[in-house]
Amino acid sequence: MAKLLLNADMGESFGPWTMGQDEAVMPFVDLANVACGFHAADPDTMRRTVALAASHGVKVGAHPAYPDLVGFGRRSLACSPAEVENMVLYQLGALHAICRAEGTRVHYVKPHGALYNDMMKNQATLAAIMRAVAAFDASLPLMLMATVNPQPAQELADQHGVTLWFEAFADRAYDAAGFLVPRSQPGAVHHAPEVIVEQARRIAAGEPLTAIDGSPLVLAAHTLCVHGDNPESIAAVAAIRRMLDGPA
Amino acid sequence: MAKLLLNADMGESFGPWTMGQDEAVMPFVDLANVACGFHAADPDTMRRTVALAASHGVKVGAHPAYPDLVGFGRRSLACSPAEVENMVLYQLGALHAICRAEGTRVHYVKPHGALYNDMMKNQATLAAIMRAVAAFDASLPLMLMATVNPQPAQELADQHGVTLWFEAFADRAYDAAGFLVPRSQPGAVHHAPEVIVEQARRIAAGEPLTAIDGSPLVLAAHTLCVHGDNPESIAAVAAIRRMLDGPA
Amino acid sequence: MAKLLLNADMGESFGPWTMGQDEAVMPFVDLANVACGFHAADPDTMRRTVALAASHGVKVGAHPAYPDLVGFGRRSLACSPAEVENMVLYQLGALHAICRAEGTRVHYVKPHGALYNDMMKNQATLAAIMRAVAAFDASLPLMLMATVNPQPAQELADQHGVTLWFEAFADRAYDAAGFLVPRSQPGAVHHAPEVIVEQARRIAAGEPLTAIDGSPLVLAAHTLCVHGDNPESIAAVAAIRRMLDGPA
Amino acid sequence: MAKLLLNADMGESFGPWTMGQDEAVMPFVDLANVACGFHAADPDTMRRTVALAASHGVKVGAHPAYPDLVGFGRRSLACSPAEVENMVLYQLGALHAICRAEGTRVHYVKPHGALYNDMMKNQATLAAIMRAVAAFDASLPLMLMATVNPQPAQELADQHGVTLWFEAFADRAYDAAGFLVPRSQPGAVHHAPEVIVEQARRIAAGEPLTAIDGSPLVLAAHTLCVHGDNPESIAAVAAIRRMLDGPA
Repeated sequence: MAKLLLNADMGESFGPWTMGQDEAVMPFVDLANVACGFHAADPDTMRRTVALAASHGVKVGAHPAYPDLVGFGRRSLACSPAEVENMVLYQLGALHAICRAEGTRVHYVKPHGALYNDMMKNQATLAAIMRAVAAFDASLPLMLMATVNPQPAQELADQHGVTLWFEAFADRAYDAAGFLVPRSQPGAVHHAPEVIVEQARRIAAGEPLTAIDGSPLVLAAHTLCVHGDNPESIAAVAAIRRMLDGPA
Repeated sequence: MAKLLLNADMGESFGPWTMGQDEAVMPFVDLANVACGFHAADPDTMRRTVALAASHGVKVGAHPAYPDLVGFGRRSLACSPAEVENMVLYQLGALHAICRAEGTRVHYVKPHGALYNDMMKNQATLAAIMRAVAAFDASLPLMLMATVNPQPAQELADQHGVTLWFEAFADRAYDAAGFLVPRSQPGAVHHAPEVIVEQARRIAAGEPLTAIDGSPLVLAAHTLCVHGDNPESIAAVAAIRRMLDGPA
Repeated sequence: MAKLLLNADMGESFGPWTMGQDEAVMPFVDLANVACGFHAADPDTMRRTVALAASHGVKVGAHPAYPDLVGFGRRSLACSPAEVENMVLYQLGALHAICRAEGTRVHYVKPHGALYNDMMKNQATLAAIMRAVAAFDASLPLMLMATVNPQPAQELADQHGVTLWFEAFADRAYDAAGFLVPRSQPGAVHHAPEVIVEQARRIAAGEPLTAIDGSPLVLAAHTLCVHGDNPESIAAVAAIRRMLDGPA
Repeated sequence: MAKLLLNADMGESFGPWTMGQDEAVMPFVDLANVACGFHAADPDTMRRTVALAASHGVKVGAHPAYPDLVGFGRRSLACSPAEVENMVLYQLGALHAICRAEGTRVHYVKPHGALYNDMMKNQATLAAIMRAVAAFDASLPLMLMATVNPQPAQELADQHGVTLWFEAFADRAYDAAGFLVPRSQPGAVHHAPEVIVEQARRIAAGEPLTAIDGSPLVLAAHTLCVHGDNPESIAAVAAIRRMLDGPA
């Protein structure tokens, strides 16, 4: 079984407000997507989060977003490609300095929320993000959503000299075209632990998933996005971890 | 005559609002103190400013500040030392990434406005800034105001392994204790070009200045802070530049 | 000739940064669209602007925007209708308090930038703004762009009990469908003072304009949007004012 | 026994982050100090909070603060009196509009955090706040901390035509001079419910408190500040409420 990395959003507290259960989830993941101050986090939160990741040997990724704290970076903002490029550079560098102070470094980049969605829909936005990553450190992988047709993104990445990491989801249903079933539809989110772990196992093994219409779906993924907002999801992460680590 | 470096605040526009005459001043200075988004500037402004500096061979310095755009970083904010340390790291890293995209790097750090003043008055604030600089890159000099007694700051810098650059002013009167005469007092600001150039010459030559009470004042300085907000001040910078470069 | 009111955006400075020439334009207009802190202005700027308007007998309008200082409110932000409603209420109230302190009041509401554009394209956004106006003070007119078919907006306004003020432009070319010719196209902006004044005169008189293809275009407007960013535009405003005031 | 009003800070969530247990505390208090967006809250949070208060018949007070979300308004910011006056007006008006949309109104003003502390220490800051209140609506009481010598604040209030409401604390120890014992000292915070209720009873009855050195302390208070951050404090609020309402 290939090594599938688990990634989770972390460091999404802000000032006096806390969010997430970073300490409970950190032991189970490989990659921590750390907020950089635009949708969540402040310099102190970033420092604490990076220190926590480092203490668990978890790799830190930059999680840049549109500048929208009140909307948590979930609202698309009509930025120019140059604005996107520079805001990603800014956030990436800010996290880089925090990492350096904690004796670690940024290992990859995963855009957040609406910026992530816009990148998947808009090649100009994706190219802008790639320019930022390439200019900062072309060895840093950029994380995207795994799709049935990764070719266009891959070609763009090749042009920019950027490595891609594709991510899949274990707790979400896919449609036959390989897109996530919208949360507004029934069956969009898996709750049964055995279903989640089985979907994770198939992704890790490179086996086809079962789309919501019953058809087989092949998604090549380097990493699995997991969540740690509540006891249920943390238990699912732990179960996936055990499955991936397997019997001795 | 020792080489005295000229530094000026740059990149203090913000979004649609412009400030300063960076293009007019850049040709005459050695060091550009570039705003990092907390008191002024945004990622796009930073990018343009760094590109301008690089095109003139001017070294870029980080100009971190308290988070206070509306107050332009001029209002003291009662932050803890840890908050100061992390906000300096954050801004330093953000500018570092922008510099990397423009093929240059951050060469030094000069705190801005109220953070600068607080650093000169409060050893805990100064130590916090030094921790940030040392953690990011101990080879980056930290710029402070030249005083008649630089010993306490120098000892703190030695403890942190940080290099200090002291700066003086050519267009401001000093009192006998070596402090700037407050702007509210008569004679605080020099306007006559020959007075400004002569004060710059003495600082560059290591000769004593004349304090406002007529007494001699020795200030050891590595750099001179100049301004470029209006035609008069830009003319003064150009005249100082000519004086420093001297006859062939 | 019916009384056509001149409106202009005002108070778009922010903290240490100035924008516009409010003092030069204020004497010529009837209505000042005052920024409320989300795309520009801060409480002090608002106070100064309202005082200036009051001193000239100019009516103050709220100029609410998306929360986006760095983008000057020109970038569409994907907000829910409830978010739009509450952000308009917030800004309207903030300006109301500043007005009260200067012995005047808010007289109307004109959304700014991307919020204005979104309102013209999206009935849900328009309805959200109308709910805010109606909840605060249904006697305050809401300013919209004059179009050849104002019926849908008018029906929505009637449902909300809100009065509409339609605005037209004297310095912009219209296409045959009554929309502004995009600035990217040749002939989009009028520069000749006599053309601008003549277009203003026709709007004031209710006479048809000439669209860019030569066809006649009837636009019913209560107010004309003017600009005061540079000497040329201020001269145009003054000329329109003289034309409107006419010979005794 | 005179009617002592219970006030509590409310609406201190921000965007996606929640704080406090407003729904649990609201039934027990008379006055809700509602955050206005500068230290906490956003327009949507304000709307929900005002609706909740209105549904319980609780009076809404404006809780203005320095502009410092990340520091939760707890860090003093060196503002001019004019800046303080205008930021209070801005926040007061913003809440006023939200209240109007919910069919209620602002009933009083209580500055938050560092602004509250600065107002208690600095007459210029206090006067600036009073100017804002008087300009907006002089009938709105301003809430201050009860001290053994309320005379200077009262005189200033009389000059501005502003009513004062003094507040005391039931869960904090006072020193013999009538100031709160700093939280860093032992015994600063009462935890035993019977101690808290007894201190509340004495304040309500106008009886002397017992200062931390055992001396009697008379504090005249119109209102008692209570907290609802955890089950313990909510239980204390409920107990104070029962004591105040007394036996039928």
